[in-house]
Parts: sequence; structure tokens; C-alpha cells
Amino acid sequence: MAIPYPHFNFRASESVETGLSPLSPSPVILTQDELKKIAAYKAVEYVESGMVIGLGTGSTAKHAVDRIGELLRQGKLKNIIGIPTSKKTHEQALSLGIPLSDLDSYPNIDLAIDGADEVDPHLNLVKGRGGSLLREKMIEGACKKFVVIVDETKMVKYIGGSGLAMPVEIVPFCWKFTAKRLQELFGYAGCVAKLRTKGSNGKESGGEPFVTDNGNYIVDLYFKRDMGDLKAASDAILRLAGVVEHGMFLDMATTVIVAGELGVTIKNKHT
Amino acid sequence: MAIPYPHFNFRASESVETGLSPLSPSPVILTQDELKKIAAYKAVEYVESGMVIGLGTGSTAKHAVDRIGELLRQGKLKNIIGIPTSKKTHEQALSLGIPLSDLDSYPNIDLAIDGADEVDPHLNLVKGRGGSLLREKMIEGACKKFVVIVDETKMVKYIGGSGLAMPVEIVPFCWKFTAKRLQELFGYAGCVAKLRTKGSNGKESGGEPFVTDNGNYIVDLYFKRDMGDLKAASDAILRLAGVVEHGMFLDMATTVIVAGELGVTIKNKHT
Repeated sequence: MAIPYPHFNFRASESVETGLSPLSPSPVILTQDELKKIAAYKAVEYVESGMVIGLGTGSTAKHAVDRIGELLRQGKLKNIIGIPTSKKTHEQALSLGIPLSDLDSYPNIDLAIDGADEVDPHLNLVKGRGGSLLREKMIEGACKKFVVIVDETKMVKYIGGSGLAMPVEIVPFCWKFTAKRLQELFGYAGCVAKLRTKGSNGKESGGEPFVTDNGNYIVDLYFKRDMGDLKAASDAILRLAGVVEHGMFLDMATTVIVAGELGVTIKNKHT
Repeated sequence: MAIPYPHFNFRASESVETGLSPLSPSPVILTQDELKKIAAYKAVEYVESGMVIGLGTGSTAKHAVDRIGELLRQGKLKNIIGIPTSKKTHEQALSLGIPLSDLDSYPNIDLAIDGADEVDPHLNLVKGRGGSLLREKMIEGACKKFVVIVDETKMVKYIGGSGLAMPVEIVPFCWKFTAKRLQELFGYAGCVAKLRTKGSNGKESGGEPFVTDNGNYIVDLYFKRDMGDLKAASDAILRLAGVVEHGMFLDMATTVIVAGELGVTIKNKHT
């Protein structure tokens, strides 16, 4: 999907909370993937030699990992240790020669860079449509700075507002019961719960259940309306026995880099 | 371990919140297992024909399941459906001819009967030293009445007060990190976190990790002091990514039947 850049100068849009970052003039039409790449490269500017870095998963984060590998090869970055958030990212980073470790060895991470499926105006996120939300949350909850990189299609007015899935990782035991309770919890927001099946990524196909890296299932929640208080919603979900983790990342992102039609916007958390 | 009965008449002790239940005179010395059996048989008096019953796991609950099987054989109970809380109880009930089903088919359970590792004065429980806390919590959270059966050694002044383990089920991924965060969470209560290993049941043996029915690990928490507000503690534990469930059953038991030296005490939840 190509997104046209209406201005001759490809530059940062204005935003109250932003540090503007003008890019070089670019009259070209950029694809969504190119926008992701622009956000990713911008995020890697936060990386410094000697840092322990959480490496995200997904089509946007992949560009950031590629870029870190490139800067290491060029000698512009040194002594980086990467903590991958999935088996897939582990393989990618390994192939790029990025030294790797894990949370058990490095419980304090300097910076994590990752994509998101939704970002609300308070920088709360939905993540995990790719299925690795638990590892991402463990790692990104352990870092001092968490830089999120998205194209502008991911910005929503409220969590669930894209009409796409908010994933919840649950144990397979009596999953129908847990799915039913999740749906009932958010009846007031018109919630529909669906088990994720292989290849469906949230769409029903009647196939085998999708299984996470941790051997669990994913129930995708779809909301018709705003669910309201997100912290209360989060605790209510986590209190259900059978739930392992959910895809809302509340109050975790410190910076969100958005690549859009008008350029790059950087949103920082108000502290 | 034999516990002497000092009185000739084996009768219910007095308790403000109790319904007293005199038993037949019994001058004999009863073992701990006999006390468990007395509590279990008392609990089965709550079972009525036509009920859907959650069947607990462990040495005390086993007596209750045996008793239900006996009453079914004698025709004193009819049309019972049992929902077992573990694979072990499933096998026991099957061998007794108790008709079985699961939460997916029967999401509303009339009554559950199970043991506990600790019971505090507010009828909050610690469960799961046997390793099946997640399934127990799912089933016992779905029942109208939850009758807990214990011998008096399980009564504590505060949760953790026995000095024995409060188990937390966690995902195997980076378990050391999660164990460390759990221990830090309760540093103020002198908490020590230990991975449960096979055959250790909370004691360190350097062996292979114990694996739950759901493919997870158990971290046992030991407290030197009262952890204080249990609901806040529960939410704090559940908010840690990597935690699946914990062994505190708060505000769930409706009745606790305690078999002790002086007889049987029945404690009902204040509603």
C-alpha cells in the first residue's frame, strides 16, 4: 500500500510534545514498509555503544534489528548486547552477528525498541498480534527506556479502536470457559472473544488453535466501544484464573516514533 | 502422627461463627489422616442429588471423593456430575464410577470440596503445594459454594504464617528473572523465592524443575513476616509478566470445616 507524500519536503510534522526531526527532501511515494523503516532507523539513533538492548519482533522492529547489525558491522556501535523478544528475532539477530543474551543474565535493560499494533493518545499500546506478547512484556517491562516504532495507521483514539484484535494469552485447559469469561467481562464494550487458529491471526478459520512460544493459546478480543479505565481492565483480566497475560502495554512506552504522510513525529511520555 | 482426643465425648468445639455438629462418642486416638477423613465426610453432607460438584485434589479431598463414590453406589446420591481439579482426581473419580465432565460443558458449579495448605482467620487460603493450583482456582472460582476441609494444623494467623510455601505458577521462559522479581516484591516481608524441583515439593534438591499439568514451573515463596494487604499482594503478583497464577485463594471459600483435637468446627464466611 503506497502512501503519497503531499509535500515536496519530507519533514517532521508539528506536534506539541515532539522533538522535530527534519529528513532530507524526498518527493517520492513511500510504501507502508518504508515508513516503518524510517521510524525504525530513527529509533536506532537512541542506541549507544555499551548498551543492553531489547530487540523487538515484527515487521517494523525487524528494520531496527537490521540497522543495529549494520552499525555494528560499520564499527559505529560497539559492545552491544541484544535481548531478543522471540525465537524469530533471536535467529535474525544471530545471523547479523549481534551478541545475544537473556533477562536471566541481564535483568536491567538500557533500551528496548519494538513495534506495536495500536498506540493511544496516552502512549498505551496493544501488542502481540504476532503472538509473542508475553516475552515482549517481560523484556520491555525491564528496560529504562522503551522506544515504540509505528507507521501512522497504528494510532488510535482508544485501545481497541482499530477494530482489530487485543490478544490475551491463556492456558489451553478449558479455554472456552476462559474465553467466555473474558467476553462477559467486557460485555459493556460490545466485546467478542475468538480463539486464534493457525494461519488465522484473529480471523476464524475452524483450524487448529495457534500455540504461543510458551505452549499457550491466544484469545483475540474485539471491542465495539471504548473499554474505559485501562488499569482496571488490566487487573480484571489478570485476575481470571486461566489468563497468562494480555496485550495491553500500559504506561510502559517512554517514546513513540510515528512515521506518517507528513513525516516523523516523536511523542515522549509526560513524566 | 497421632493426635490424642482429651475428652471422652468427641464433639464440636465452640466457635462464634460455627454451626456445631456433635459426632458419636469416640475415646480413641485419631491420626491426622482420620481427622482429614472426618472433615471430608462432614463436607459431603452438603452434596445433594442432581448437583454439579467440583472435586478437589490432595490427601484430604481424596476422602471426600471416595465418600461421594460410596454414596452413589449406595443409591443415597443420584445424578451427580463431577468436575475434577486434576488428572489424578479424574482417575480416582473414574475408578469410583462418578460421572465426570468439565468447565467448558458446565461453567456453573453448585459446590466444590477441596483441601487447603493454609487457612487464615478470614478464610483466605493457600493452596497448590500439590502443584494443581491453576485448575483448582478456575473450578473453585466458578462455584456457588466452596467447602474447604482441613485438619487443624492448617489454621494460621496470617497467609504464609506456617513457614511453608506459597506457590506461584510461572512460565519457564527466564524463570530466574521472574523468581527474582517475586522475591523483591515482598522484600519487606522477608520473602525467599525458590524454584520447585522434582520430588522436592518446595525443598531445594538441585534436580530438574517440577512441571505443572499446564507445562509451567512453580516458584515457592517463603515469608518471614505477614505480607499485609492480600488483595494488593495478589494484584502485584499477577501484574508481573511471566506469572500465570498464584496459590492464594482470597475471598473464595464459603465454608471451612476444621477437624481438630476437640472435634469438628465449621466456619462460615460472613456475607
